[in-house]
Amino acid sequence: FLKLIKGNVVSFTSTAMKSGGTQLKLIMTFQNYGQALFKPMKQTREQETPPDFFYFSDFERHNAEIAAFHLDKILDFRRVPPVAGRLVNMTKEIRDVTRDKKLWRTFFISPANNVCFYGECSYYCSTEHALCGKPDQIEGSLAAFLPDLALAKRKTWRNPWRRSYHKRKKAEWEVDPDYCEEVKQTPPYDSGTRLLDIMDMTVFDFLMGNMDRHHYETFEKFGNETFIIHLDNGRGFGKHSHDEMSILVPLTQCCRVRKSTHLRLQLLAKEEYKLSMLMAESLVRDRLSPILIQPHLDAMDRRLRQVLNVLSECIEKEGYSYVVEDDLQGHQGTDHAHTGPRRR
Amino acid sequence: FLKLIKGNVVSFTSTAMKSGGTQLKLIMTFQNYGQALFKPMKQTREQETPPDFFYFSDFERHNAEIAAFHLDKILDFRRVPPVAGRLVNMTKEIRDVTRDKKLWRTFFISPANNVCFYGECSYYCSTEHALCGKPDQIEGSLAAFLPDLALAKRKTWRNPWRRSYHKRKKAEWEVDPDYCEEVKQTPPYDSGTRLLDIMDMTVFDFLMGNMDRHHYETFEKFGNETFIIHLDNGRGFGKHSHDEMSILVPLTQCCRVRKSTHLRLQLLAKEEYKLSMLMAESLVRDRLSPILIQPHLDAMDRRLRQVLNVLSECIEKEGYSYVVEDDLQGHQGTDHAHTGPRRR
Repeated sequence: FLKLIKGNVVSFTSTAMKSGGTQLKLIMTFQNYGQALFKPMKQTREQETPPDFFYFSDFERHNAEIAAFHLDKILDFRRVPPVAGRLVNMTKEIRDVTRDKKLWRTFFISPANNVCFYGECSYYCSTEHALCGKPDQIEGSLAAFLPDLALAKRKTWRNPWRRSYHKRKKAEWEVDPDYCEEVKQTPPYDSGTRLLDIMDMTVFDFLMGNMDRHHYETFEKFGNETFIIHLDNGRGFGKHSHDEMSILVPLTQCCRVRKSTHLRLQLLAKEEYKLSMLMAESLVRDRLSPILIQPHLDAMDRRLRQVLNVLSECIEKEGYSYVVEDDLQGHQGTDHAHTGPRRR
Repeated sequence: FLKLIKGNVVSFTSTAMKSGGTQLKLIMTFQNYGQALFKPMKQTREQETPPDFFYFSDFERHNAEIAAFHLDKILDFRRVPPVAGRLVNMTKEIRDVTRDKKLWRTFFISPANNVCFYGECSYYCSTEHALCGKPDQIEGSLAAFLPDLALAKRKTWRNPWRRSYHKRKKAEWEVDPDYCEEVKQTPPYDSGTRLLDIMDMTVFDFLMGNMDRHHYETFEKFGNETFIIHLDNGRGFGKHSHDEMSILVPLTQCCRVRKSTHLRLQLLAKEEYKLSMLMAESLVRDRLSPILIQPHLDAMDRRLRQVLNVLSECIEKEGYSYVVEDDLQGHQGTDHAHTGPRRR
């Protein structure tokens, strides 16, 4: 897939708006019938989310989608479907190939003679928030589609640590320090590895500053004995100058982590395998490189130390064997866990 | 009036949203029953209007309202009612004194713990475009109200060189080079000084880059033998790096100007009376100084030269006596015209 979209040889045969979701996304269909989800660039890489913005009105960032894929891979979770950056010709690859009249109608030429469009959606789909090319080239992220829902049904789960999505209301987990005890007694978190999955996702989201993890998905086929899919990461990497500690609350409240995750985080804190360095190395291969400005990379190192501090405190308080779940039994040594597939 | 709002001693006894208009404005009432129109700050002084923005979706700028008042004074037009900058306490001077429930309801505390509100209007009145204080102080412009409409009725006139307010459509003046001939034959432009007033307004708008002069007003009492009022200048000073030549079209098409205006423009082009310098000197007295960043001041000098070039070409083509209307007869020498009241 990555080769396909990186190649830029194969172009799109059709384009349509994706319904649902608050911000504009396009479904791009390739000549070989493959499909990908396109999120156009809305912000420059230097722009930070304004301090007075709520997480639910923040823009979705195409570079966050790309960076999240690389981060997930470096954390060895492998729970984000492939995402790559791509320059798209808005005229030839969107306007001329769409059969979506509503989308087509929103194209216009800007005063600076660039091609722009805004589509239809519930937020930011208006002339004032139009997406404009230079003159018709626009950056975007392309995310591989998961297998068709007809072949592989998915289940959507509400994140127990979901935010209120309200300006004033607080969520239960924000006011109840013992909230995790409640979650632990509730299926599917009362058995299996789901709670540990949530802890992994918490670390993943904290490292990129993503406050918008309201739901997550699993493949239905595997029931509750399955991994979770980290879809929709566009609201990560909004601020590099601020670490949103509330994202870590599931970890601070539950004090649980997989051994493989703990070891990996410790590894990425070492100078030789520094997270920011591995991320930079990985991201440089994307077409739209640089994907993240240095302050975002530095922020990840800083946040990683904070995650490890939280885990140290947990271990001190609750004991190593309570906090760290050994998921490496049956694997040959710890090395394997860092390179091979994960036990979910 | 300026002393009143500058003094900051007198505070507001009530606040209400102004209906009409696309962007949020507030009517502030003083203890002495005086009223002023408040436009809150929406952009930093450094932000330029993005190149892909249309003039009709541009933000209204509080500092443009202030700067326009000073510019109009320096041009010796005196057709903009007084405007001054002011720091307003959003809690005490807006939220606590408004009887407007719809306005009151839109107040909230932002994630950065600042007081914000967004009001009700057709553009930019939503959480995403909220106006936020620090923590509850917000900058804004306060414009003196003209005499009550019951005492002094006003007439609203469509600007003959109004833009189309449409992404694709062009206005007649944009496609017809002889458009001015048509205007000149149409009342009230066929007699009196109205056409010359429009030329003055054209210069005024071009100097500040204001493309949004769709209407203008006059006091009804004086019939057609009156001056025009330069209200609503918030869309000036959007770009300093671009000179929008289309704003000058009325002047290039009509090739007419008052002698007093012509002399004043020539004076302001001289090194000793340089427009940017006089503007800077005048603006420094505003509470919210600096009102304009240097690039905007420099842009005005550059544009002034362009206006004078257009007039030179006109004179070369049509002759001095056709282009320059002597409005100084009856005055004692030209000096008077630069310091005393203008003949309308």
